[in-house]
Amino acid sequence: MSDLDTALPWLDALKWDEHGMIPAIAQDAASGRVLMFAWMNRESLEMTIQSGNAVYWSRSRRRLWRKGEESGHFQRIKSVRADCDGDVLLLSIEQVGGIACHTGRESCFFLELQGERWVPADPVVKDPKDIYAK
Amino acid sequence: MSDLDTALPWLDALKWDEHGMIPAIAQDAASGRVLMFAWMNRESLEMTIQSGNAVYWSRSRRRLWRKGEESGHFQRIKSVRADCDGDVLLLSIEQVGGIACHTGRESCFFLELQGERWVPADPVVKDPKDIYAK
Repeated sequence: MSDLDTALPWLDALKWDEHGMIPAIAQDAASGRVLMFAWMNRESLEMTIQSGNAVYWSRSRRRLWRKGEESGHFQRIKSVRADCDGDVLLLSIEQVGGIACHTGRESCFFLELQGERWVPADPVVKDPKDIYAK
Repeated sequence: MSDLDTALPWLDALKWDEHGMIPAIAQDAASGRVLMFAWMNRESLEMTIQSGNAVYWSRSRRRLWRKGEESGHFQRIKSVRADCDGDVLLLSIEQVGGIACHTGRESCFFLELQGERWVPADPVVKDPKDIYAK
Protein backbone atom coordinates (compact mmCIF):
# COMPACT_ATOMS: atom_id res chain seq x y z
CA MET A 1 0.00 0.00 0.00
CA SER A 2 1.19 3.50 -0.76
CA ASP A 3 1.36 6.11 1.97
CA LEU A 4 -1.44 8.60 2.50
CA ASP A 5 -0.97 11.66 0.28
CA THR A 6 -1.39 14.64 2.61
CA ALA A 7 -1.74 16.97 -0.40
CA LEU A 8 -5.09 15.43 -1.37
CA PRO A 9 -8.46 16.62 -0.03
CA TRP A 10 -8.84 14.82 3.29
CA LEU A 11 -11.68 12.49 2.27
CA ASP A 12 -10.01 11.56 -1.02
CA ALA A 13 -6.70 10.87 0.75
CA LEU A 14 -8.28 7.95 2.58
CA LYS A 15 -8.33 4.50 1.01
CA TRP A 16 -11.89 3.26 1.00
CA ASP A 17 -12.29 -0.48 0.49
CA GLU A 18 -14.23 -2.16 -2.33
CA HIS A 19 -17.45 -1.55 -0.38
CA GLY A 20 -16.64 2.14 0.18
CA MET A 21 -15.78 1.49 3.82
CA ILE A 22 -12.91 2.23 6.18
CA PRO A 23 -12.38 0.63 9.61
CA ALA A 24 -12.50 2.91 12.64
CA ILE A 25 -11.08 2.18 16.10
CA ALA A 26 -12.57 4.12 19.01
CA GLN A 27 -10.20 4.75 21.91
CA ASP A 28 -11.11 6.42 25.19
CA ALA A 29 -9.26 9.74 25.33
CA ALA A 30 -8.95 9.60 29.12
CA SER A 31 -8.20 5.96 29.94
CA GLY A 32 -6.56 4.94 26.67
CA ARG A 33 -8.72 1.83 26.49
CA VAL A 34 -9.70 0.60 23.06
CA LEU A 35 -13.50 0.57 23.28
CA MET A 36 -14.78 -0.71 19.96
CA PHE A 37 -14.19 -1.23 16.28
CA ALA A 38 -16.67 -0.36 13.55
CA TRP A 39 -16.90 0.75 9.93
CA MET A 40 -17.50 4.11 8.30
CA ASN A 41 -18.42 5.19 4.83
CA ARG A 42 -17.85 8.70 3.52
CA GLU A 43 -21.20 9.96 4.68
CA SER A 44 -20.79 8.65 8.23
CA LEU A 45 -17.30 10.13 8.50
CA GLU A 46 -18.52 13.51 7.27
CA MET A 47 -21.40 13.36 9.77
CA THR A 48 -18.94 12.42 12.51
CA ILE A 49 -16.78 15.46 11.83
CA GLN A 50 -19.70 17.83 11.39
CA SER A 51 -21.63 16.70 14.46
CA GLY A 52 -18.69 15.96 16.77
CA ASN A 53 -20.23 12.56 17.62
CA ALA A 54 -19.25 9.20 16.15
CA VAL A 55 -21.48 7.97 13.33
CA TYR A 56 -20.74 4.55 11.86
CA TRP A 57 -22.13 2.44 9.07
CA SER A 58 -23.88 -0.63 10.46
CA ARG A 59 -23.10 -3.47 8.08
CA SER A 60 -25.69 -5.77 9.67
CA ARG A 61 -28.50 -3.18 9.56
CA ARG A 62 -27.24 -1.58 6.36
CA ARG A 63 -27.80 1.95 7.55
CA LEU A 64 -26.08 4.87 9.22
CA TRP A 65 -25.64 4.24 12.92
CA ARG A 66 -25.37 7.25 15.17
CA LYS A 67 -23.59 5.56 18.08
CA GLY A 68 -25.68 6.08 21.21
CA GLU A 69 -28.94 6.67 19.35
CA GLU A 70 -30.64 3.92 21.39
CA SER A 71 -28.42 3.65 24.47
CA GLY A 72 -27.59 7.32 24.99
CA HIS A 73 -23.95 6.27 25.00
CA PHE A 74 -22.73 8.78 22.45
CA GLN A 75 -19.07 9.15 21.60
CA ARG A 76 -17.80 12.73 21.58
CA ILE A 77 -14.93 13.15 19.16
CA LYS A 78 -11.71 14.58 20.60
CA SER A 79 -9.48 13.91 17.61
CA VAL A 80 -9.30 11.79 14.48
CA ARG A 81 -6.17 10.15 13.17
CA ALA A 82 -5.40 8.05 10.10
CA ASP A 83 -2.64 5.49 9.76
CA CYS A 84 0.37 5.73 7.46
CA ASP A 85 -1.34 4.27 4.41
CA GLY A 86 -4.67 5.95 5.08
CA ASP A 87 -6.84 2.86 5.29
CA VAL A 88 -7.72 2.87 9.02
CA LEU A 89 -9.03 5.60 11.34
CA LEU A 90 -8.37 6.05 15.05
CA LEU A 91 -10.95 8.10 16.94
CA SER A 92 -10.01 9.55 20.29
CA ILE A 93 -13.33 9.94 22.09
CA GLU A 94 -15.11 10.75 25.30
CA GLN A 95 -17.46 7.82 25.95
CA VAL A 96 -20.72 9.17 27.38
CA GLY A 97 -21.91 6.92 30.22
CA GLY A 98 -18.57 5.09 30.29
CA ILE A 99 -20.10 2.19 28.36
CA ALA A 100 -19.34 1.39 24.71
CA CYS A 101 -20.50 -2.23 24.53
CA HIS A 102 -24.05 -3.48 24.02
CA THR A 103 -23.36 -5.99 26.85
CA GLY A 104 -23.15 -3.06 29.29
CA ARG A 105 -19.39 -3.18 29.60
CA GLU A 106 -16.94 -0.30 29.19
CA SER A 107 -15.23 -1.88 26.19
CA CYS A 108 -16.31 -4.39 23.56
CA PHE A 109 -12.90 -6.03 24.03
CA PHE A 110 -13.75 -7.82 27.25
CA LEU A 111 -12.96 -11.40 26.16
CA GLU A 112 -9.45 -12.46 27.06
CA LEU A 113 -7.77 -15.54 25.65
CA GLN A 114 -6.80 -17.70 28.62
CA GLY A 115 -5.27 -20.98 27.51
CA GLU A 116 -7.68 -22.19 24.85
CA ARG A 117 -10.76 -20.31 26.03
CA TRP A 118 -12.20 -16.82 25.65
CA VAL A 119 -13.00 -15.59 29.15
CA PRO A 120 -15.05 -12.47 30.00
CA ALA A 121 -12.46 -10.42 31.89
CA ASP A 122 -14.33 -7.17 32.57
CA PRO A 123 -17.37 -6.44 34.75
CA VAL A 124 -20.78 -5.46 33.43
CA VAL A 125 -21.21 -1.82 34.42
CA LYS A 126 -24.94 -1.68 33.72
CA ASP A 127 -27.48 -4.34 32.83
CA PRO A 128 -28.35 -4.04 29.12
CA LYS A 129 -32.02 -4.34 30.05
CA ASP A 130 -31.67 -1.01 31.84
CA ILE A 131 -29.81 0.52 28.91
CA TYR A 132 -32.13 -0.48 26.13
CA ALA A 133 -35.40 -0.35 28.12
CA LYS A 134 -38.34 0.53 25.91
CA MET B 1 -23.91 -10.12 14.61
CA SER B 2 -24.32 -12.73 17.32
CA ASP B 3 -22.07 -12.66 20.38
CA LEU B 4 -18.96 -14.81 20.58
CA ASP B 5 -19.80 -18.28 21.93
CA THR B 6 -17.26 -18.90 24.68
CA ALA B 7 -18.16 -22.63 24.68
CA LEU B 8 -16.65 -23.13 21.22
CA PRO B 9 -12.98 -24.00 20.58
CA TRP B 10 -11.22 -20.64 20.62
CA LEU B 11 -10.34 -20.52 16.92
CA ASP B 12 -13.82 -21.58 15.85
CA ALA B 13 -15.42 -19.02 18.15
CA LEU B 14 -13.95 -16.20 16.07
CA LYS B 15 -15.80 -14.87 13.05
CA TRP B 16 -13.49 -15.01 10.08
CA ASP B 17 -14.52 -12.86 7.13
CA GLU B 18 -15.23 -14.11 3.61
CA HIS B 19 -11.47 -14.13 2.95
CA GLY B 20 -10.72 -16.10 6.14
CA MET B 21 -9.35 -12.98 7.83
CA ILE B 22 -9.89 -11.15 11.10
CA PRO B 23 -8.68 -7.60 11.86
CA ALA B 24 -6.13 -7.18 14.65
CA ILE B 25 -5.33 -4.00 16.54
CA ALA B 26 -1.93 -3.80 18.24
CA GLN B 27 -1.80 -1.66 21.38
CA ASP B 28 1.32 -0.88 23.39
CA ALA B 29 0.92 -2.58 26.77
CA ALA B 30 2.92 0.11 28.55
CA SER B 31 1.85 3.40 26.94
CA GLY B 32 -1.63 2.38 25.79
CA ARG B 33 -0.97 3.82 22.34
CA VAL B 34 -2.63 2.13 19.41
CA LEU B 35 0.34 1.23 17.22
CA MET B 36 -1.03 -0.44 14.12
CA PHE B 37 -3.83 -2.37 12.50
CA ALA B 38 -3.36 -5.47 10.37
CA TRP B 39 -5.05 -8.70 9.37
CA MET B 40 -4.65 -12.29 10.53
CA ASN B 41 -5.76 -15.62 9.14
CA ARG B 42 -6.01 -18.77 11.24
CA GLU B 43 -2.44 -19.78 10.59
CA SER B 44 -0.97 -16.41 11.54
CA LEU B 45 -3.03 -16.28 14.74
CA GLU B 46 -1.91 -19.76 15.72
CA MET B 47 1.72 -18.81 15.01
CA THR B 48 1.25 -15.65 17.07
CA ILE B 49 0.04 -17.60 20.09
CA GLN B 50 2.64 -20.35 19.73
CA SER B 51 5.62 -18.06 19.17
CA GLY B 52 4.58 -15.20 21.44
CA ASN B 53 5.33 -12.72 18.65
CA ALA B 54 2.78 -11.08 16.35
CA VAL B 55 2.43 -12.72 12.94
CA TYR B 56 0.05 -11.11 10.46
CA TRP B 57 -1.19 -11.88 6.98
CA SER B 58 0.12 -9.33 4.51
CA ARG B 59 -2.70 -8.73 2.04
CA SER B 60 -0.44 -6.79 -0.32
CA ARG B 61 2.31 -9.40 -0.35
CA ARG B 62 -0.12 -12.30 0.05
CA ARG B 63 2.00 -14.11 2.59
CA LEU B 64 2.54 -14.56 6.31
CA TRP B 65 4.26 -11.55 7.78
CA ARG B 66 6.24 -12.08 10.94
CA LYS B 67 6.19 -8.48 12.18
CA GLY B 68 9.78 -7.33 12.66
CA GLU B 69 11.26 -9.87 10.27
CA GLU B 70 12.99 -7.07 8.31
CA SER B 71 13.11 -4.24 10.82
CA GLY B 72 13.82 -6.20 13.99
CA HIS B 73 10.81 -4.46 15.51
CA PHE B 74 9.06 -7.56 16.78
CA GLN B 75 5.90 -7.37 18.84
CA ARG B 76 5.92 -9.51 22.00
CA ILE B 77 2.42 -10.61 22.91
CA LYS B 78 1.27 -9.76 26.43
CA SER B 79 -2.39 -10.68 26.01
CA VAL B 80 -4.98 -11.22 23.30
CA ARG B 81 -8.57 -10.10 23.50
CA ALA B 82 -11.57 -10.47 21.22
CA ASP B 83 -14.55 -8.17 21.02
CA CYS B 84 -18.13 -9.03 21.96
CA ASP B 85 -19.08 -10.51 18.61
CA GLY B 86 -15.71 -12.15 18.02
CA ASP B 87 -14.81 -10.48 14.77
CA VAL B 88 -11.91 -8.25 15.89
CA LEU B 89 -8.76 -8.95 17.95
CA LEU B 90 -6.91 -6.61 20.29
CA LEU B 91 -3.29 -7.49 20.95
CA SER B 92 -1.58 -6.01 23.96
CA ILE B 93 2.09 -5.99 23.03
CA GLU B 94 5.58 -4.91 23.92
CA GLN B 95 6.93 -3.11 20.86
CA VAL B 96 10.60 -3.99 20.42
CA GLY B 97 12.58 -0.86 19.47
CA GLY B 98 9.62 1.37 20.28
CA ILE B 99 8.79 1.66 16.57
CA ALA B 100 5.82 0.00 14.90
CA CYS B 101 5.58 2.08 11.70
CA HIS B 102 7.59 1.64 8.51
CA THR B 103 8.08 5.44 8.52
CA GLY B 104 10.20 5.08 11.67
CA ARG B 105 7.52 6.41 14.00
CA GLU B 106 6.24 4.82 17.20
CA SER B 107 2.71 4.38 15.84
CA CYS B 108 1.24 4.07 12.36
CA PHE B 109 -1.50 6.47 13.52
CA PHE B 110 0.57 9.62 13.23
CA LEU B 111 -1.64 11.60 10.85
CA GLU B 112 -4.04 13.91 12.65
CA LEU B 113 -6.99 15.56 10.97
CA GLN B 114 -6.53 19.30 11.44
CA GLY B 115 -9.27 21.26 9.68
CA GLU B 116 -9.37 19.67 6.25
CA ARG B 117 -5.84 18.29 6.19
CA TRP B 118 -4.02 15.24 7.47
CA VAL B 119 -0.98 16.50 9.35
CA PRO B 120 1.94 14.34 10.59
CA ALA B 121 1.69 14.88 14.35
CA ASP B 122 4.39 12.55 15.71
CA PRO B 123 8.18 12.66 15.33
CA VAL B 124 10.23 10.17 13.34
CA VAL B 125 12.16 8.18 15.94
CA LYS B 126 14.57 6.58 13.48
CA ASP B 127 15.22 7.13 9.78
CA PRO B 128 13.70 4.22 7.81
CA LYS B 129 16.98 4.05 5.81
CA ASP B 130 18.68 3.01 9.03
CA ILE B 131 15.95 0.49 9.88
CA TYR B 132 15.74 -1.31 6.57
CA ALA B 133 19.40 -0.97 5.56
CA LYS B 134 20.62 -3.89 3.46
